[in-house]
Amino acid sequence: MKHRFNLRNWLLLAGLLALPLLATGVFGQEAAAPADPSAYSDEAFMASDGYAVFTVNNLWICIAAALVFIMHLGFATVESGLSQSKNTVNILFKNVWIITTGILLYAFWGFYSMYPPGDNYVLVSGVFARGGWLGSAIDMMDPAKVTAEYNAGYTVWGDFLFQAMFAATAATIVSGAVAERVKLTSFMVFSVLLVGFAYPVTGYWKWGGGWLADRGFYDFAGSSVVHAFGGFAALACVLILGPRRGKYTKDGIKPIVGHSMPLATIGVLILWLGWFGFNGGSALSADPKAVSYSLVTTSLAAAAGAIGSIFTSWIVIKKPDLSMALNGILAGLVGITAGADTVSEGSAVLIGIIAGALVVGSILFFDKIKIDDPVGAISVHGICGMWGTIAVGIFSFNSEHSLFTQILGTVAISLFAFVFSYVVFFALKAIMGVRVSEEEEAGGLDVAEHGAPAYHIS
Amino acid sequence: MKHRFNLRNWLLLAGLLALPLLATGVFGQEAAAPADPSAYSDEAFMASDGYAVFTVNNLWICIAAALVFIMHLGFATVESGLSQSKNTVNILFKNVWIITTGILLYAFWGFYSMYPPGDNYVLVSGVFARGGWLGSAIDMMDPAKVTAEYNAGYTVWGDFLFQAMFAATAATIVSGAVAERVKLTSFMVFSVLLVGFAYPVTGYWKWGGGWLADRGFYDFAGSSVVHAFGGFAALACVLILGPRRGKYTKDGIKPIVGHSMPLATIGVLILWLGWFGFNGGSALSADPKAVSYSLVTTSLAAAAGAIGSIFTSWIVIKKPDLSMALNGILAGLVGITAGADTVSEGSAVLIGIIAGALVVGSILFFDKIKIDDPVGAISVHGICGMWGTIAVGIFSFNSEHSLFTQILGTVAISLFAFVFSYVVFFALKAIMGVRVSEEEEAGGLDVAEHGAPAYHIS
Amino acid sequence: MKHRFNLRNWLLLAGLLALPLLATGVFGQEAAAPADPSAYSDEAFMASDGYAVFTVNNLWICIAAALVFIMHLGFATVESGLSQSKNTVNILFKNVWIITTGILLYAFWGFYSMYPPGDNYVLVSGVFARGGWLGSAIDMMDPAKVTAEYNAGYTVWGDFLFQAMFAATAATIVSGAVAERVKLTSFMVFSVLLVGFAYPVTGYWKWGGGWLADRGFYDFAGSSVVHAFGGFAALACVLILGPRRGKYTKDGIKPIVGHSMPLATIGVLILWLGWFGFNGGSALSADPKAVSYSLVTTSLAAAAGAIGSIFTSWIVIKKPDLSMALNGILAGLVGITAGADTVSEGSAVLIGIIAGALVVGSILFFDKIKIDDPVGAISVHGICGMWGTIAVGIFSFNSEHSLFTQILGTVAISLFAFVFSYVVFFALKAIMGVRVSEEEEAGGLDVAEHGAPAYHIS
Repeated sequence: MKHRFNLRNWLLLAGLLALPLLATGVFGQEAAAPADPSAYSDEAFMASDGYAVFTVNNLWICIAAALVFIMHLGFATVESGLSQSKNTVNILFKNVWIITTGILLYAFWGFYSMYPPGDNYVLVSGVFARGGWLGSAIDMMDPAKVTAEYNAGYTVWGDFLFQAMFAATAATIVSGAVAERVKLTSFMVFSVLLVGFAYPVTGYWKWGGGWLADRGFYDFAGSSVVHAFGGFAALACVLILGPRRGKYTKDGIKPIVGHSMPLATIGVLILWLGWFGFNGGSALSADPKAVSYSLVTTSLAAAAGAIGSIFTSWIVIKKPDLSMALNGILAGLVGITAGADTVSEGSAVLIGIIAGALVVGSILFFDKIKIDDPVGAISVHGICGMWGTIAVGIFSFNSEHSLFTQILGTVAISLFAFVFSYVVFFALKAIMGVRVSEEEEAGGLDVAEHGAPAYHIS
Repeated sequence: MKHRFNLRNWLLLAGLLALPLLATGVFGQEAAAPADPSAYSDEAFMASDGYAVFTVNNLWICIAAALVFIMHLGFATVESGLSQSKNTVNILFKNVWIITTGILLYAFWGFYSMYPPGDNYVLVSGVFARGGWLGSAIDMMDPAKVTAEYNAGYTVWGDFLFQAMFAATAATIVSGAVAERVKLTSFMVFSVLLVGFAYPVTGYWKWGGGWLADRGFYDFAGSSVVHAFGGFAALACVLILGPRRGKYTKDGIKPIVGHSMPLATIGVLILWLGWFGFNGGSALSADPKAVSYSLVTTSLAAAAGAIGSIFTSWIVIKKPDLSMALNGILAGLVGITAGADTVSEGSAVLIGIIAGALVVGSILFFDKIKIDDPVGAISVHGICGMWGTIAVGIFSFNSEHSLFTQILGTVAISLFAFVFSYVVFFALKAIMGVRVSEEEEAGGLDVAEHGAPAYHIS
Repeated sequence: MKHRFNLRNWLLLAGLLALPLLATGVFGQEAAAPADPSAYSDEAFMASDGYAVFTVNNLWICIAAALVFIMHLGFATVESGLSQSKNTVNILFKNVWIITTGILLYAFWGFYSMYPPGDNYVLVSGVFARGGWLGSAIDMMDPAKVTAEYNAGYTVWGDFLFQAMFAATAATIVSGAVAERVKLTSFMVFSVLLVGFAYPVTGYWKWGGGWLADRGFYDFAGSSVVHAFGGFAALACVLILGPRRGKYTKDGIKPIVGHSMPLATIGVLILWLGWFGFNGGSALSADPKAVSYSLVTTSLAAAAGAIGSIFTSWIVIKKPDLSMALNGILAGLVGITAGADTVSEGSAVLIGIIAGALVVGSILFFDKIKIDDPVGAISVHGICGMWGTIAVGIFSFNSEHSLFTQILGTVAISLFAFVFSYVVFFALKAIMGVRVSEEEEAGGLDVAEHGAPAYHIS
């Protein structure tokens, strides 16, 4: 247990966390104007015709947020299941860190940086907005924030909740790719910066009404905004970090198999469940057509992804591989995410099958060029996220969706994620190091970083 | 790892999968008339009084579908938890195969075979309908498909989604019973035929408005249509397959215990959660009375099932057995499924207690007559499915529910499942074999069929 | 396997279970007046303006009940994950027992004891009401029970379902604290008495409109009514039971680490998911403002709890401890439960951070004074439950919430739970013993009490 409390690192981290608080004067503001929800009471609205529809819409956004939340359990279990048992506590800890700091950072900065609540938040129009504490926008006292005047589908809090659960996903994707050799504190700092500050930037480009939205780029639920973003951030980190020791030897690639396939399967099926909220909630209301149609294409693509992956891997690696089948499900889900509401059921099947085949090829390819991604995150989220975004340009009903714009959008978002991550992770490498020592890697991060193994089965 | 890619088997499978596609001309149809959901836009409906109720109804069906979906994680974990660790990957793979092919087959054939969208689909009135690709029925372009004109409770897609999740359940039940010795490819072909083609037949008999519906047979959420169907399909397969080696010796029955009780418990509690959708969604709307009442009887029966099972097993096998308690919960759930909306709360408790006692007796009985069912699936789903269906004839409020018809219906459905499965599985045995070799069984199916064990805990 | 069927104990238990049945004449009543739900049909209500809102409200209560239900899987996994593998079956069995008997007892007695359906149920006004079988209150035949006349937010069955899922939670909390040395049968009897008879008493004080409600005590979703109640019941039992052997030696405290951190993490994240229903459902309707606001404060406090706990434990025990991070999440959730709808978002963060720090200090403190609580239940639920209740007196928007009353209420509830549990558990110790033998404890309760270990990984 060589790892100790490192004052320098923690001051750094504390500073990062404190910055947005200071910047937005959260505590001062709060004292002055506590956001009393009872101030929003609007009895006239409750009695109005629109109240029932608004209530069911908002309820669905809240339930969808819960479903996206539980995806973090899915990520935690799929990542730990596909890694070695000696690094399990470390992976679980990172996932707990990401979902908890993710929500807080989104409240302290990200939400308003991604969805500027007023022109005074916009620093470079269409490109960059500053954030701020959730409670700081004065017009939150406006009754309209909890009625259909804010949005037909949700209150300001339903909005925040749903988007906050999405935000943390990006860093979780990275977590899987860097597993088994990343230094804990460095990853903690990196994930804070990625979720808190980088994700809202590209999010603003599209969903916040920035330049990609203006160009007609389409990404229904985030094949690019969330998944390709996370996947290419992961690629940057993995390039700096290097492969796990002993993976690529002169005798060839030595597979490092996961330690628990039940955990991995639990993870993938929970992720699929979560995608009911991820895609279904992205209808941004409970509209019967929009929600049910999106869920059908989502389910078809997930199923087709598994089939595409099972058959491809059976042909290529000559066995029915469970981890490939699982990654195929995720590939199908990531692939349909950009266009779930705008492609036909048949196209959804096709998108899923291609994603499932693609993920197998991609995982084998990255392994061949010695880019070591223990859980296949770069392939699942990066490559299939790009594929799904481009697929909208091919299969969409909507003739305004252009293949060129789809390519432009996914490349822009992926590039930003890659460059940001490369620069930040490179800086962290220089400042505090990003990789555990050889001994710690061999002994496992659980004991090295946390002083406790994950299992004691007697 | 003796198992190899077997061209003959896969051509067979591919052909089966391709048949319905060819039959219904899915890709041609699609090109001609893509089912653009925006074509269904009906602003008048959105502004109408009924829109809010329809929206909440459809939302509930979609959420219920998500809950039924997650039952597949429940089945995957309860089956693997109650089996040996050396067969875990195999069980998980089968479950992934079933839910993914299940959804696709239901889209390509099953949905319309079970619920014919027009008279031209009906081949033998009340007995058999042909299926077809989900997008193939021309009248899907009708705006009515997404309004209350299609159904008061859901759009056509909500309908499909909910029913597709049900369909895959039948084959999953079989998966548990044949675990630890079935040949993977044979099971894959069998499950495709069972889910894709057999399940919709008896489903049509009752829920599609066929001859059992005409006779007044009642099965609220599928004690017979889903559970007894799956249970008796499992019985047929187990009879052909034979018991696991070493289970029944001349020195008596040698118990083969499950490898992870936490996995089994996770599975059963997730199944219970899923039953909130399975039974609650079977109200086919969010009607306050229908949904909340069904959920109360469901919960009471599940709880009573556990108690019935705990006490029965404690008396009979002289210890408080966790796996029996878990099967008792499932027994209670299966038992109440046929009549959740039509028996009193007190009757629900009674139905559950009896189911819980019955499942213990049934498991011990099948073991005694050397029918080897590793997870008790025949008892839980087959026997308690029959019991639940018959219980409607005894306890229902509705005087039109007749004991005779209930017996007739459950026997008809179970018999069809049994005969179909017996014939198909027997044919598969002749064509490609249904059982792994002695060495493969001893070494475990994970390594034999998939080339990888489930656990690497160092 | 020394444990045998013990007639005396079981007659005792059977008697306890039978008492409320006899008292309320459930079966007689039922025969006389089966609660046919179709009798409640109210077409006029369905056609009325209020029907849509009532439907979505009731649906949310039912879904929230499902979410609270799955918390029992969360408790089962977090408790078993944080305990030794040799006691896993025992912990899982206890959790199955609690949720199943909990629902039944609440139907047979607790619901009406907590929420008296008429003055004839009240024995001491504001302090104690008798219970009765769910179906026994004649006015359940009243159509008003399934319309907004019963409650704006739910039918009588939605009400029962949601509250029943809460009731079982109290005993589950105790289960974790007494793990690894409690005698199974004694715990079974104790949990029946605690859930069935004690929990509804203090529940009546506040939520049933008793003396604490009259005094203006506020507890939104049960920081005191559920969590402090369970935590202080646990404290009483642990004081009588004593620590696990080998924990406190003359050489100091010997940590007994949990056997599976993935199980523990699964448990905590499922509990967080469940809290979406626990707190969100406590709005008692789907009101957009109330639900979404409560879910935001809940999420912020949970996240802040983890951060508070991670940093505190890192400073104090010099490592980033996963089990402390997990307990921090739970601490934040318990802490915000009393005031989720009545404190600002900033206060929610503060309440969570403090709860997270508090739980670390509390766990270390109880360990220091040799009160052995394997999973930290007393700290998480008891101490943070008190903290959350008191926090309402500090941070609430509502000036009518008084710090004094909040302290009075949480002390009253905790004291009742403590005294009741102390007396009952002490009596059980005298009658049947509450602790397993030294050999059984050393060998593990799984084999000793259940005759089967939890794991067979070959």
